[in-house]
Amino acid sequence: MSSSNPLRDPADRRLPRIAGPSGLVIFGVTGDLSRKKLMPAVYDLANRGLLPPGFSLVGFARREWAHEDFAQEVHDAVKEHARTPFREEVWQQLIQGMRFVQGTFDDDDAFERLRSTIEELDKAQGTGGNFAFYLSVPPKSFPVVIQQLKKHGLADQKGGSWRRAVIEKPFGHDLKSAEELNKVVHEVFAPEQVFRIDHYLGKETVQNILALRFANTMFEPIWNRSLVDHVQITMAEDIGIGGRAGYYDGIGAARDVIQNHLLQLLALTAMEEPSSFDADALAAEKTKVLGAVKLPKDLGRDTVRAQYAAGWQGGTKVRGYLEEDGIDASSKTDTYAAIKLEIDNRRWAGVPFYLRTGKRLGRRVTEIAVVFQRAPHSPFDSTATEELGSNAIVIRVQPDEGVTVRFGSKVPGTSMEIRDVSMDFAYGESFTESSPEAYERLILDVLLGDSNLFPRTEEVELSWKILDPIEEYWDNNGKPAQYPAGTWGPAEADEMLERHGRSWRRP
Amino acid sequence: MSSSNPLRDPADRRLPRIAGPSGLVIFGVTGDLSRKKLMPAVYDLANRGLLPPGFSLVGFARREWAHEDFAQEVHDAVKEHARTPFREEVWQQLIQGMRFVQGTFDDDDAFERLRSTIEELDKAQGTGGNFAFYLSVPPKSFPVVIQQLKKHGLADQKGGSWRRAVIEKPFGHDLKSAEELNKVVHEVFAPEQVFRIDHYLGKETVQNILALRFANTMFEPIWNRSLVDHVQITMAEDIGIGGRAGYYDGIGAARDVIQNHLLQLLALTAMEEPSSFDADALAAEKTKVLGAVKLPKDLGRDTVRAQYAAGWQGGTKVRGYLEEDGIDASSKTDTYAAIKLEIDNRRWAGVPFYLRTGKRLGRRVTEIAVVFQRAPHSPFDSTATEELGSNAIVIRVQPDEGVTVRFGSKVPGTSMEIRDVSMDFAYGESFTESSPEAYERLILDVLLGDSNLFPRTEEVELSWKILDPIEEYWDNNGKPAQYPAGTWGPAEADEMLERHGRSWRRP
Repeated sequence: MSSSNPLRDPADRRLPRIAGPSGLVIFGVTGDLSRKKLMPAVYDLANRGLLPPGFSLVGFARREWAHEDFAQEVHDAVKEHARTPFREEVWQQLIQGMRFVQGTFDDDDAFERLRSTIEELDKAQGTGGNFAFYLSVPPKSFPVVIQQLKKHGLADQKGGSWRRAVIEKPFGHDLKSAEELNKVVHEVFAPEQVFRIDHYLGKETVQNILALRFANTMFEPIWNRSLVDHVQITMAEDIGIGGRAGYYDGIGAARDVIQNHLLQLLALTAMEEPSSFDADALAAEKTKVLGAVKLPKDLGRDTVRAQYAAGWQGGTKVRGYLEEDGIDASSKTDTYAAIKLEIDNRRWAGVPFYLRTGKRLGRRVTEIAVVFQRAPHSPFDSTATEELGSNAIVIRVQPDEGVTVRFGSKVPGTSMEIRDVSMDFAYGESFTESSPEAYERLILDVLLGDSNLFPRTEEVELSWKILDPIEEYWDNNGKPAQYPAGTWGPAEADEMLERHGRSWRRP
Repeated sequence: MSSSNPLRDPADRRLPRIAGPSGLVIFGVTGDLSRKKLMPAVYDLANRGLLPPGFSLVGFARREWAHEDFAQEVHDAVKEHARTPFREEVWQQLIQGMRFVQGTFDDDDAFERLRSTIEELDKAQGTGGNFAFYLSVPPKSFPVVIQQLKKHGLADQKGGSWRRAVIEKPFGHDLKSAEELNKVVHEVFAPEQVFRIDHYLGKETVQNILALRFANTMFEPIWNRSLVDHVQITMAEDIGIGGRAGYYDGIGAARDVIQNHLLQLLALTAMEEPSSFDADALAAEKTKVLGAVKLPKDLGRDTVRAQYAAGWQGGTKVRGYLEEDGIDASSKTDTYAAIKLEIDNRRWAGVPFYLRTGKRLGRRVTEIAVVFQRAPHSPFDSTATEELGSNAIVIRVQPDEGVTVRFGSKVPGTSMEIRDVSMDFAYGESFTESSPEAYERLILDVLLGDSNLFPRTEEVELSWKILDPIEEYWDNNGKPAQYPAGTWGPAEADEMLERHGRSWRRP
């Protein structure tokens, strides 16, 4: 099926990363993530010929479904959310391996049924005992599911088969809880069996950071403290918390985004070059650079957290955070967080890394901007360069995925005047191949046992070590600043950069 | 007039480089250059408010014209070739200062008439005795015109007024003739009175080389032998010699283009940063780098000259050079030349600079390509990077003026495959200002006495010192190779690069 499949990535022709015999069990299969991302991703992988013929998908949930009901759910989710066109023959193949197991997480009988379902699939579908367990469940359910998998022998890798656990964030809510969670997981699964999903790492543009830095000659020599003034890493959302009050309140922007996505982006941007991209080498470099992150001395000046107030977004008046349904009017949860970090190593010493994230900001955008120092001396008249800013390389993670380089160029005319211009590389324009969804990439990697794009225990714990003192400071000092919805955050965040003659980008 | 003029460059608002009281005398005013470039440039400058109100234009030629006939000629040339719209009020102002002097170059009476015309203009138009003499004449007429200017006191700068000589290439046809020409010129004019036109230096993109290199932070650190593999400087024309057989045969591509345009581009690309852009500092750096140019040891391998043979261009069958009207079938004149040079200094030692030019090539394009070394080590699988080329920064001089950066980026897909992509900055898209013609810029500079963009005696002589041994070698060794019109030159030129694992760009 695969070699004649018109939907397969041309890239995969060269390196056909096709999963071997295997199946995927999803806990919490009735949830949003499963329906919008996981089921469509499984179908898209099958459609691209990257799954084995007997690939099996098992749903586990409390709902009273027959296998057919589950299959119908998957069918509807695929029709609505899959990236690639629906093809009946692919669907007919996929449906052969679909099973549903009804039960709650503390139900021993259900886990026994899961065990026998897997055994049945091994025989009927040739899955060879290779199964990944995707825990798309609330954090509080992690321990019980993990324990049940152990108790019913589902984590055992017998006769060359493999079992893997896939965990969604949050990986704890501070260092202590993360350590506890890791302890529970690693009592059952060895480190190489555990795959923590940070879906940002599945994005093409994030992986492209590595290509950009290490496959090219021209960026690496300028990627250091001698030439870089500072780095800005931004993830801005235009939406509010929507219906997620229950999850979000008490967590906040810094825990929800900075601890995982932004610190991972920082690690990829700042790490040294590994000698190869095997998972250990890559993890070692990321761990090294996260371990070198230094907190600001004055947390009052160099961190800012805030809540959105009522304002206008996209022509609509929107409520402030404290007026949202389910949010207590005295909540101190941050919907915006900005922090300044430094990295204590030879390459980066003294270069600030500014991380910010927020909801209800000006627009939805994620980007990494490496902003360079001004030229140390200008042979031009000062009037010639008075409109010239700083050179910058901007990696646009989403939307409009690509890379922008900002530099100075002569303005046409009979005098020498130099002004900022931009050079642009856009993924969408340069490649005919469309980008796989992050979850396609990541689920395939799980089935292949390729853990390159999954943060490890050490990385997760180091990230909490960075964030914990900041959260503690915030808990003990005042309350969040305010910013009108639809703006680019609170004045305090602007001041944080202006003190050093810098300013946030308005991307 | 100037501040309310909508056609003035916004750039000039900041630094209004407006010429003071002055006039321009054109010798050879009935020629093509004068009609197509000089007259329109004078009008465009006036239209942009960059000329003084009493600016005067004097034509000198053999033709039996009255002032009105000359004015009519200018009028027609402006209507046909000017860059900016025709405005009657500008024209009416300009026509006040237009005069014609009839005569041959050896006619003393004519030069006396020129002298009294200038004196009359000083009174009527307030030109203040400030005149530039533009020698748009064949090289053989240079000495007589220069001598006549001296004999009739026209080169004298009295009472704070200035006189300047503008010389068009060719500046000789070898070192000896260039030295002789320079001697003739400098017997009459001091170095600062002489402006040698290399119209390439008036192009926006050429001036932008300086802005790009020295106003930015990110290019200079990679602009050296540690990271650059080689540099390619190309000026390709798609046209043949047209009606220029008489001029071109015996001169050839290397003398016509490499000696001036391409070596000037090399100087701007390779020179060290001057501490300021005053003309002396800039000339000193250009002279220094041209003086460090090293010829290839083996001129037989590292230079190639060729003639176009019959072929197809733009769907039309075209003749070979030896079949062109006025060309002797035994001519050895090169219509294509490619040479490898090195620069003996700390920045560039060992980095080849490949220069090539030719007529009847694939398309009209002038560009400078700085091609970087491959990354010294790739952490990626070799399959991931097998389609990856070298990083390059390409300054597109014409057409499609701008800058392109070529680098490797991840191909969308679930495996790591890295392929070349391009980032692009286009003058036309980034600026609303349209670019002045090179001659506008250069004539204004002459009137302002700004000699930044004019090659000096030393540069011209150094360039001949580079070219002479090559021309001598060609004279004494065989005859030109052949290439079909419409192709990218002879196989010998490809081999010249392939021997070192490189290849010419097909821009």
